[in-house]
Amino acid sequence: MSFDYSSHSHRRYNPLTRAWILCSPHRNQRPWQGQKEKVNQEDRPHYDSQCYLCPGNKRAHGDINPNYTSTFCFMNDFAAVQDDQPSSTSDDEQDDLLRIQGVRGECHVICFSPRHDLTMAEMTTDDIVKIIYQWIKCYRDMASKDFIRYVQIFENKGQAMGCSNPHPHGQLWCLERTPVEPQREFDSLIAYREIHHGHCLLCDYAKREIKEQTRIVVENDTFLCVVPFWAVWPFEVLLLPKDHVTCLPQLSSRQIDDLADALRRITCRYDNLFQCPFPYSMGIHQAPVRQNHDYAHLHFHFYPPLLRSATIRKFLVGFEMLAEPQRDLTPEQAANQLRACSEIHYKQQHQ
Amino acid sequence: MSFDYSSHSHRRYNPLTRAWILCSPHRNQRPWQGQKEKVNQEDRPHYDSQCYLCPGNKRAHGDINPNYTSTFCFMNDFAAVQDDQPSSTSDDEQDDLLRIQGVRGECHVICFSPRHDLTMAEMTTDDIVKIIYQWIKCYRDMASKDFIRYVQIFENKGQAMGCSNPHPHGQLWCLERTPVEPQREFDSLIAYREIHHGHCLLCDYAKREIKEQTRIVVENDTFLCVVPFWAVWPFEVLLLPKDHVTCLPQLSSRQIDDLADALRRITCRYDNLFQCPFPYSMGIHQAPVRQNHDYAHLHFHFYPPLLRSATIRKFLVGFEMLAEPQRDLTPEQAANQLRACSEIHYKQQHQ
Ligand SMILES: O=P(O)(O)O[C@H]1O[C@H](CO)[C@@H](O)[C@H](O)[C@H]1O
Ligand SMILES: O=P(O)(O)O[C@H]1O[C@H](CO)[C@@H](O)[C@H](O)[C@H]1O
Repeated sequence: MSFDYSSHSHRRYNPLTRAWILCSPHRNQRPWQGQKEKVNQEDRPHYDSQCYLCPGNKRAHGDINPNYTSTFCFMNDFAAVQDDQPSSTSDDEQDDLLRIQGVRGECHVICFSPRHDLTMAEMTTDDIVKIIYQWIKCYRDMASKDFIRYVQIFENKGQAMGCSNPHPHGQLWCLERTPVEPQREFDSLIAYREIHHGHCLLCDYAKREIKEQTRIVVENDTFLCVVPFWAVWPFEVLLLPKDHVTCLPQLSSRQIDDLADALRRITCRYDNLFQCPFPYSMGIHQAPVRQNHDYAHLHFHFYPPLLRSATIRKFLVGFEMLAEPQRDLTPEQAANQLRACSEIHYKQQHQ
Repeated sequence: MSFDYSSHSHRRYNPLTRAWILCSPHRNQRPWQGQKEKVNQEDRPHYDSQCYLCPGNKRAHGDINPNYTSTFCFMNDFAAVQDDQPSSTSDDEQDDLLRIQGVRGECHVICFSPRHDLTMAEMTTDDIVKIIYQWIKCYRDMASKDFIRYVQIFENKGQAMGCSNPHPHGQLWCLERTPVEPQREFDSLIAYREIHHGHCLLCDYAKREIKEQTRIVVENDTFLCVVPFWAVWPFEVLLLPKDHVTCLPQLSSRQIDDLADALRRITCRYDNLFQCPFPYSMGIHQAPVRQNHDYAHLHFHFYPPLLRSATIRKFLVGFEMLAEPQRDLTPEQAANQLRACSEIHYKQQHQ
């Protein structure tokens, strides 16, 4: 009997985070008697008078949203970081066991459009281009504030991913310090560059995936979307420019169009996979603001929780929290399933 | 205005995992309109004929459970790792980008008692002592199998933590390779020991917490349970022996009694906090089997998801997955709340 990676248990290594993932392909047949997710199949209205993100409505602290017609960005009413706090003394940072440091910052919310019901999966490429320009504007605005070092752009979609308002929106948390995950990736990118005579890990990885083909889900001239070799979530994808680009403002207008195309196609395939609004957390990793940062390679991570249907998710709990992330199907199998999905949204197909 | 760690945003450093956590104490007042957890307040029967873990019942692959009267351990019917697969070739480990290795192992399930309805929170200390002896037996049994290197013992409790059967039970995943999390902790313990002239990080940390008092929740002669300075989950606790003990089999019978006492008291306080069966993932970190492992210091992590009530949980999603774990109340505030809870279970109080 020889080792077969599509059925025998194995670990894969994530060179970006330098951590292993346990993969158990034979385990996907396990019956499920635990928690079922709620699926929201009802059609939402274009406008909801109770929604604090819809145009013209009142927000938590009394501000009234303008009658916006495209994207709309505002300061988060319950920000996790604030700019009006003192900078902390550094004394406590000397402590080996109880180490602490202050963090100033700003949190912003970006509504993707005035429409209460329009997710990225059902938007046109032109709509998505507007979101990308809004991200670029926000990133640039932050670069002008000298206490901001890193801008984390992300979207939580769906109740299963802790989203508390269904009006499609993303967030920006802008921080005085580079957070753990991007810092870990930067360290890996820098180390790879040193060992590999100036090569970029993600440029090399994109080439490798194009050669292997098996994990590609969406591709166009300048962007590539794969289920990464080291995916943790069942249908996790990594979306990145084929050429070296350090941050959103560096994208050419052609690359921006291609990015919008790739975002539309992958989110549409996601919805079609289980014929439901596919929940996920999505986030952008790019260079810290105002740094000498040629080592960074812009990319998007999508972390969707669903495993086998609209109601059965993967729980990353006990073993995963205490020991190592674990997955039940191979990234190649997941890519196959996503490749089999249409790029026309199921709601449009049924019309 | 001077910096105040109980209201200003800050980061704390976890010396075991060498990662930071963002803490935003002012943010706990945020209204919640997202997903609400289901609370199961109904009294379960002592025995459920449909439960594949109850005594005398049939399991997924046809095996019949014995009429067990104490704990009961069996091989997981849907194991994530198996012993009957070939060992993998190591060729692929040389690849910088697509690195992969085979993992053999065994997965076991431990029913905590024949009772379908009896969680640790409502057990007597004597009942819990039996579970500890079962863990010790399992760990010892694994040490005799030469392909097993690490034994991860854990419990997922509650549907919110992916538990698919409410009959109280835990698991053991026994692996050919030490997984990411324990390996990271071992590396930290070893490094600390070198810098600090042979001192153990967790021995020093326990002393420090006893001196500070503010984060202690449960304490007896030989065990200490704190909300760690670097807790990620709102009511996360760390339970550890005050003296240096590398693994469960090293515990004296007095320490085993104290461990059972601490487990009963912390799980009972958990249930009392929001008057519900408190969900969590719990796991034991200890020395790998058969190694020269004096650097390891046995400890238990409890990761419970609830934040503000039986139905409102903390979601570690977008920012947390992409950037850095974030919490809304300080560990000291969480310890205060847990200290205010009774050690008599709410169901017994109402009788
Ligand atoms: O084995 P169980 O309890 O059915 O499964 C649960 O715990 C496992 C170990 O943490 C996870 O991999 C599963 O996702 C979870 O549903
Ligand atoms: O800001 P929101 O969307 O209300 O909150 C959501 O996303 C945040 C950032 O990932 C998390 O910290 C919260 O736990 C989650 O509920």
